[in-house]
Amino acid sequence: MLRTHTCGELRISDVNRDVTLAGWVQRLRDKGSLLWIDLRDRYGITQLVFDETHTPRELMEQARKLGREYVVQAEGTVVERVSKNDRIPTGDIELRVKKLTVLNPSRVPPFTIEDDTDGGDDLRMKYRYLDLRRTPVRDNLMLRHRVARETRAYLDSQNFVEVETPVLIKSTPEGARDFVVPSRIHRGEFYALPQSPQTFKQLLMVSGFDRYYQIVKCFRDEDLRADRQPEFTQIDCEMAFVTQDDILSVFEGLIKHLFKTVKGIDLPEVPRMTYEDAMRQYGSDKPDTRFDMRFKELTDLVKGKGFQVFDNAEIVVGICAKGCAEYTRKQLDELTEYVRRPQIGAKGLIYLQYKTDGSVKSSVDKFYTPEDLKGWIERFGANPGDLILVLAGETNATRKQLNELRLLMGDRLGLRDKNTYSALWVIDFPLLEWDDENQRYHAMHHPFTSPRKEDIPLLDTDPGKVRANAYDLVINGNEIGGGSIRIHDKPTQQLMFRKLGFTPEEAQKQFGFLMEAFEYGAPPHGGIAFGFDRLCAVFGGSDSIRDFIAFPKNNAGRDTMIDTPSTISQEQLDELGLVIKPE
Amino acid sequence: MLRTHTCGELRISDVNRDVTLAGWVQRLRDKGSLLWIDLRDRYGITQLVFDETHTPRELMEQARKLGREYVVQAEGTVVERVSKNDRIPTGDIELRVKKLTVLNPSRVPPFTIEDDTDGGDDLRMKYRYLDLRRTPVRDNLMLRHRVARETRAYLDSQNFVEVETPVLIKSTPEGARDFVVPSRIHRGEFYALPQSPQTFKQLLMVSGFDRYYQIVKCFRDEDLRADRQPEFTQIDCEMAFVTQDDILSVFEGLIKHLFKTVKGIDLPEVPRMTYEDAMRQYGSDKPDTRFDMRFKELTDLVKGKGFQVFDNAEIVVGICAKGCAEYTRKQLDELTEYVRRPQIGAKGLIYLQYKTDGSVKSSVDKFYTPEDLKGWIERFGANPGDLILVLAGETNATRKQLNELRLLMGDRLGLRDKNTYSALWVIDFPLLEWDDENQRYHAMHHPFTSPRKEDIPLLDTDPGKVRANAYDLVINGNEIGGGSIRIHDKPTQQLMFRKLGFTPEEAQKQFGFLMEAFEYGAPPHGGIAFGFDRLCAVFGGSDSIRDFIAFPKNNAGRDTMIDTPSTISQEQLDELGLVIKPE
Repeated sequence: MLRTHTCGELRISDVNRDVTLAGWVQRLRDKGSLLWIDLRDRYGITQLVFDETHTPRELMEQARKLGREYVVQAEGTVVERVSKNDRIPTGDIELRVKKLTVLNPSRVPPFTIEDDTDGGDDLRMKYRYLDLRRTPVRDNLMLRHRVARETRAYLDSQNFVEVETPVLIKSTPEGARDFVVPSRIHRGEFYALPQSPQTFKQLLMVSGFDRYYQIVKCFRDEDLRADRQPEFTQIDCEMAFVTQDDILSVFEGLIKHLFKTVKGIDLPEVPRMTYEDAMRQYGSDKPDTRFDMRFKELTDLVKGKGFQVFDNAEIVVGICAKGCAEYTRKQLDELTEYVRRPQIGAKGLIYLQYKTDGSVKSSVDKFYTPEDLKGWIERFGANPGDLILVLAGETNATRKQLNELRLLMGDRLGLRDKNTYSALWVIDFPLLEWDDENQRYHAMHHPFTSPRKEDIPLLDTDPGKVRANAYDLVINGNEIGGGSIRIHDKPTQQLMFRKLGFTPEEAQKQFGFLMEAFEYGAPPHGGIAFGFDRLCAVFGGSDSIRDFIAFPKNNAGRDTMIDTPSTISQEQLDELGLVIKPE
Repeated sequence: MLRTHTCGELRISDVNRDVTLAGWVQRLRDKGSLLWIDLRDRYGITQLVFDETHTPRELMEQARKLGREYVVQAEGTVVERVSKNDRIPTGDIELRVKKLTVLNPSRVPPFTIEDDTDGGDDLRMKYRYLDLRRTPVRDNLMLRHRVARETRAYLDSQNFVEVETPVLIKSTPEGARDFVVPSRIHRGEFYALPQSPQTFKQLLMVSGFDRYYQIVKCFRDEDLRADRQPEFTQIDCEMAFVTQDDILSVFEGLIKHLFKTVKGIDLPEVPRMTYEDAMRQYGSDKPDTRFDMRFKELTDLVKGKGFQVFDNAEIVVGICAKGCAEYTRKQLDELTEYVRRPQIGAKGLIYLQYKTDGSVKSSVDKFYTPEDLKGWIERFGANPGDLILVLAGETNATRKQLNELRLLMGDRLGLRDKNTYSALWVIDFPLLEWDDENQRYHAMHHPFTSPRKEDIPLLDTDPGKVRANAYDLVINGNEIGGGSIRIHDKPTQQLMFRKLGFTPEEAQKQFGFLMEAFEYGAPPHGGIAFGFDRLCAVFGGSDSIRDFIAFPKNNAGRDTMIDTPSTISQEQLDELGLVIKPE
């Protein structure tokens, strides 16, 4: 080793030891007769000291010439510091250097390698290997490492077997777009990269593997939006001979284990809520339950009083923001502007201020009597000082708009602390989702999700009402995981494909192998997949998954560091038998 | 859960317990008044019993109708067996069934699900999910799981950080062919799938991550041969601030840990041998050291005696097969035929039989006196009863031929037992390898391998003689891992690219980011990668990696189960802007 110790481990008990360190020059302070260098590695920072009394002139000069980010090896003796630094674990000591070797010099980095950097996003992506030197970024990846390790530890303890499924699979154009890989040997044919190992994990259940997991890369060729990555990582799991309850309980165990071991937090029992209740109470299938502020419907109270907006609305629904009654006109206008932004799309916002003195002020005073408004207050259980905010319109759209407003108010009231965690199981998702554009139903999860037995008759009469044995795990308003009990017999799977508009030939071509497998003794089974990048981001208290990926793509799907995607040679294209069509 | 216990856990102490099992019907024996079913799951087999005294007639009839591979749930009481079966852990008990539920019937499988199956390779690949039910195949994947788990346990204990590197990277047409992935958003541009995370792990060292590992899928679009897979798995590792010795010692630790924890074997210290010695003594850079039978050169002894074959040969070299002196003429002819096969390509084989009675018989008696032949015997330290086999010709070719013969003799003498393990470090590989076809040097490992400092001057005068800081781990004649100390400065890397025939522009386009990274404080570093599939195969005592991959491709790179590669839709091609050129 080019070092005897790391830059994070020397303590007062090491004083007088001769040691060798290696690392990067973080900072150099030169007082003429005294010179300090902060030497940094992955484990910490140790101060090197050079002073005229102990340091030969030549060595002093050599030290003086070091630049930021030079890689050096320093041999010397551990001494006690005169003025200690209690902000770092090595702060009691410093290294009196006897010999200094420059292992590699460094050009001046394009941005400062500090906790807070002056580098913009683009620069930091291009020089990602320098950005990764910064403590907060390194900490994110160390966190990711720990989450992966503890995930495996828990699943191993529960008898899960890690099985690697193939990356070169078959294109099945259901759901998002596949990335494809042209085959050179079989010209004109393609592999596809998996959007998830779904069918393979189901086949493993048919094989009797019974408890499978994998932390695995998945791929989606989507039109990119902020914080989507073309390649992402899943904790992918499947179990046989289980009910939905068994799966929820095993994976609630996983999440509790992760919170305990990675964050030191005892997560309480995770409540369960139906999709219908989540939509009714939060307007979202991934509600942020760190704060209450649930929706209350006023539809029955407000109709027929001459206020056209409410009279014509399918639903009138609101939230109560505690302690916000004294919002100014300007503040209230801001909220109205917020919900009227095109991304949210509400027509307007009605408010009721239940002032601290007990008086009531509302934007619809002229339509509703004080008695009417008291009915609203009662419905919300509001107290003096509270502000009631109400939206009206078509049910689904209005709930979605109110969800956005609720989240905004949660932010304003400081109810969404990144260090507070609230988890929730959302269950009983609809099986199908109507796709207006293509005028057909889509599988809300995927075509392998089983319908609830009692709802199967509805498949013919009211498909949108059929509930699935499907569930999501939500933490702090983020969908962290989702899964379902799968179909495990051919007739139900065929029925499902038919309802999704597959012809029997299409179903056979794409999923014939799975349906055939179901005929050879497929056990009842189900599973779940967790978005590993998102899970790490939530644990790290960040909204961005990119900060938790070592080498992410930018929003255009590009890695600007290595410059990919990029052109390939004509020779490569010829070998693949491909021609690029001019646009 | 649909069961209270697995089929592998009930014991005599469970007698009288009411339990529920679930699994597959392995076998049914029907004696009329008595009926047994072997119920199988991943954990074992438990016998179900139905007898006229205890079993209602209807249940008896229901059991009688079950077919092989039906999935059933059986509730009943654990009873002691009358005739115990000591070959299985559950052999003391059986389950007297009270209730039987068919969870899923099964068609008759296309081959028998037994340890030895009647299914051919093609059929087993097409129904891989059924093949995976067979105990030996399942055991292989369980072994793989344990090897992965223990690999992580060891590397975690050594402070390695698991970092995921990207799968969508950039095509760098050095070495094998890349699989490429067309970008839809950036039309005409492509990602490539990694042949290894080589440059990324080096960048992680530049980032200060210092000890990195990953068990990771890699991809090579090679012309397929037996036991090559287009996607394969590596244990990929890199360390900074280390010497070659440090790396060998850390990863010798890994291999010892794996042997200990997975196989229960204490692997002795792994000897080190230079590439030159390995070629000289075994004719191979991956010698099987389970047996000695090293080469001895006779060149100096045999020249000038009128035997043209030896006189014209660059090298005359042989092995001594103990106890084979009494081989018949037919056996010796077989050996000659073996080495003359086109795949091996020797012109002929010379032998010397040192008979048990002390007499000597040789195929070149007429050229060499008994005194001459005694010289051969002495060189080999042969004893009466030994057979000396000699080849002659051009040095490299002859050594390779003799290597094949040595392995054959090892097999014949039973010296290559699959349960015996011998590991070896081969070090000091040549940096460059002459490529006759393209009339240029190739990097023997890859272009990032550092030359030994003292050999750098040879780069200009005799490039083929330059030794690299490169090493391979060989177990039982299989190359299990390989790596090197890397170049970590731009000038040396540029020099290397120049020697490999890159123009400065090509080097910049493909690897500019890496050379730039070397200018920002790159620490000395090196690493190693292990072929994970091969490692598992060696641990499992198998020659074939395919048996240790859940869903392998066949020798034509095809997955016949899911039928891939396959055609994609015109719509997909159009979106990608690609046209398939007619052949």
